[in-house]
Amino acid sequence: MSNSTFNTQDTIVALATSPGAQGAIAVIRVSGPDAITLVNSVFKGKDLTRQKSHTIHFGTIRDGEEIIDEVLVSLFVAPHSYTKENSVEISTHNSKYIIERILSLLIRQGARSARPGEFTLRAFLNGSMDLSQAEAVADLIASNSAASHQVAMQQMRGGFSNQLKKLREDLVHFASLIELELDFSEEDVEFANRDQLKALIMQIHAVVLKLIQSFEQGNVLKNGVPVVIAGKPNVGKSTLLNALLNEERAIVSDIAGTTRDTIEDEINIKGITFRFIDTAGIRETEDIIEAKGVERTLEKMKQARLIIYLFDPTQDDIDAVQKQIEEIRTLNIPFVTIINKSDLLTEEARQPYAALQPLYISAKEQQGIEELKDELLKQVNLANINTDDVVVTNIRHVEALQRTSEALEKVLYGIDNPVTSDFLAMDIRQALHHLGEITGTVTTDDLLDNIFSKFCIGK
Amino acid sequence: MSNSTFNTQDTIVALATSPGAQGAIAVIRVSGPDAITLVNSVFKGKDLTRQKSHTIHFGTIRDGEEIIDEVLVSLFVAPHSYTKENSVEISTHNSKYIIERILSLLIRQGARSARPGEFTLRAFLNGSMDLSQAEAVADLIASNSAASHQVAMQQMRGGFSNQLKKLREDLVHFASLIELELDFSEEDVEFANRDQLKALIMQIHAVVLKLIQSFEQGNVLKNGVPVVIAGKPNVGKSTLLNALLNEERAIVSDIAGTTRDTIEDEINIKGITFRFIDTAGIRETEDIIEAKGVERTLEKMKQARLIIYLFDPTQDDIDAVQKQIEEIRTLNIPFVTIINKSDLLTEEARQPYAALQPLYISAKEQQGIEELKDELLKQVNLANINTDDVVVTNIRHVEALQRTSEALEKVLYGIDNPVTSDFLAMDIRQALHHLGEITGTVTTDDLLDNIFSKFCIGK
Repeated sequence: MSNSTFNTQDTIVALATSPGAQGAIAVIRVSGPDAITLVNSVFKGKDLTRQKSHTIHFGTIRDGEEIIDEVLVSLFVAPHSYTKENSVEISTHNSKYIIERILSLLIRQGARSARPGEFTLRAFLNGSMDLSQAEAVADLIASNSAASHQVAMQQMRGGFSNQLKKLREDLVHFASLIELELDFSEEDVEFANRDQLKALIMQIHAVVLKLIQSFEQGNVLKNGVPVVIAGKPNVGKSTLLNALLNEERAIVSDIAGTTRDTIEDEINIKGITFRFIDTAGIRETEDIIEAKGVERTLEKMKQARLIIYLFDPTQDDIDAVQKQIEEIRTLNIPFVTIINKSDLLTEEARQPYAALQPLYISAKEQQGIEELKDELLKQVNLANINTDDVVVTNIRHVEALQRTSEALEKVLYGIDNPVTSDFLAMDIRQALHHLGEITGTVTTDDLLDNIFSKFCIGK
Repeated sequence: MSNSTFNTQDTIVALATSPGAQGAIAVIRVSGPDAITLVNSVFKGKDLTRQKSHTIHFGTIRDGEEIIDEVLVSLFVAPHSYTKENSVEISTHNSKYIIERILSLLIRQGARSARPGEFTLRAFLNGSMDLSQAEAVADLIASNSAASHQVAMQQMRGGFSNQLKKLREDLVHFASLIELELDFSEEDVEFANRDQLKALIMQIHAVVLKLIQSFEQGNVLKNGVPVVIAGKPNVGKSTLLNALLNEERAIVSDIAGTTRDTIEDEINIKGITFRFIDTAGIRETEDIIEAKGVERTLEKMKQARLIIYLFDPTQDDIDAVQKQIEEIRTLNIPFVTIINKSDLLTEEARQPYAALQPLYISAKEQQGIEELKDELLKQVNLANINTDDVVVTNIRHVEALQRTSEALEKVLYGIDNPVTSDFLAMDIRQALHHLGEITGTVTTDDLLDNIFSKFCIGK
């Protein structure tokens, strides 16, 4: 590993809380061999070098005689910290001026500014967590729904890692047996029982495939379900969207003390995020099904994982509706058929559409919205996810799993065909390598750079 | 005091760090009699009710069986906390989702959302600090320069309060002696030596007047010096402003880990902030001295505490310049006369302007900028402030001091004139009352509401 990026001898420092004027306090994080002595050199209060881990001390940070702030200092003595290094958290008044003064003071004392994710990188390098757990920390911070939160939490707490670890251990066992055969290659012995090996490989392969398959679900849990609302102008697409969104907004503004960025076109149904894709049609109530521009709109609709098709039987007769539904069906994406303005509709007027099994709603009167939500959940088939299942949410992991799968297939081929032990051993090693990439048993500087540079500074 | 606002029996909770996606960690603050038991009821780890004050504990926050986050919990057992109440700080991953879940969980357990400044209000109500110190906490958080930081820090640490406390104690002593005289009024005794009283009142009055006078300086230290750059079009006002600002920007961007809001037209010279007032003239390089619109521009210029008058001798002859300087002089505001583009100027060409004692600069070539800065500091007469002096920065305090001063003048009149002891006592009580308003010995609900509602939530 290159010294520049992965030097853990430096003592690093960063603001760990969000910048911004709204907060009352800010936390500056310091980690590294000299963290405690370094903070102690600018702290007036108790001698920090003589205090126990996990204790808090009131005092002042001073630049010479000048008092920069009255602070609370939290001590974490190695290895009992997030990074497993000596660490200090300085809780200051949330003034940009004070934060800058303290950061530059600590840097003058010998610390350096932490790079993005460097605290978590150190936690990984020092064995506090594996790579997939470290990645889950970033996912956890970014999580904005019950579902994305849950998968990130599970991954951070090692659910994913544990499953892979077990598989990997079994495979390592066989790899060593086969490599043992190589040492005795002239004697043509088989230490590794080929039937047992095949059974194990097939078992591992099944798990790996299941993990790969979980990615679609995992991606939905993490990033939400992209939805398109389709329908002719003035059928009420915009009203429907607002009916879905407004309720959400009301819930969100209930809790004081937090601000939320503007909710774009997103709703959260029982912990699953549905993201509405802005086709021209939704906001401006233009037509997104009609002949002109259909191509472009269909292209947009292909990004959806779910389509809400909305129509108004007072405008569209059954033939027009059926033609539109045919077009949507060609996309091969689940869709929900909805009749809007149903409060204005007689039983008789509903008759011709019965075969389409539509949902009757009135977006304006907020009728049928709950039923629509249930239907959306049902369509994405996420309502009855067993959230204890390990779910892959990270594209990097899927790619490594896919490479693992390919290697495993080669191993299977090798078992069933006259392939020498050395080739078999190589393929198993290859599978182990790719499994190791996920948890960080196998890493490269580039990989780590790539992963941790996406973290925020201070994490 | 009304129960609604000043109830300290509730346990209050709020996010104490800035909201926003950039941070790695967030801190949720809980304070009140039940803070520890309440957090303990949702915390899995050690039993928090059996731990010492100022200790940190790792564990999980759970909503039933669901893990909301892995957290660090800091315990402060009453009275050893900011509020003097039981307090807990929960350090969480900085996810809005997690923060909202934990806040609402704690509220469900019986806490309530803290109002703005309520933690500091409790610190005041519980005797941890006086009112002027509490106000300084908000000033400290808002401080954005060495000077504003220093006066806020001094006030928070009680510099101001201590000075007033001493004066008030002396005055209380005399007030009681005079009130004693009232009890013996029929015997016509004087317990309070009138000469000593007069000397004390005069001494107090002098200090109060000095504090009142310090406000102009304090206001400049806290809010910066408003400056106008005046001059004809194309003399280089905009270039000069940028020359002053750019250097600052470069310095600011040096320290990683903090973001700074866009610096508006502000520079910081040796800790003093100079704020450039946006007269039409500065940015658009319109004329702000010429006949048309002079009225309006002069009005703007009156807001300045300092004027930079810039001219270009290749454009303006000495008569035009002198006329302009005369106009500026009528404003009775300190001003600095500057010749720009001096790099293009021969010694001979400078000759006619020598009597104006101008500063020669070239904004474009960054020449003379440092000299200009020194001159700006010199003009506002803040370079040699004795920063150990107590400086008043709060308009509320000045007003109370002014009322104190009036009352003291009445006392002085009373001593020198045949006024009965009861009136004298009343005037002294009046002076004590107004002094007490500053430190919060005397408060009303409205006053406290007014002060603390300006705080942010979580402070």
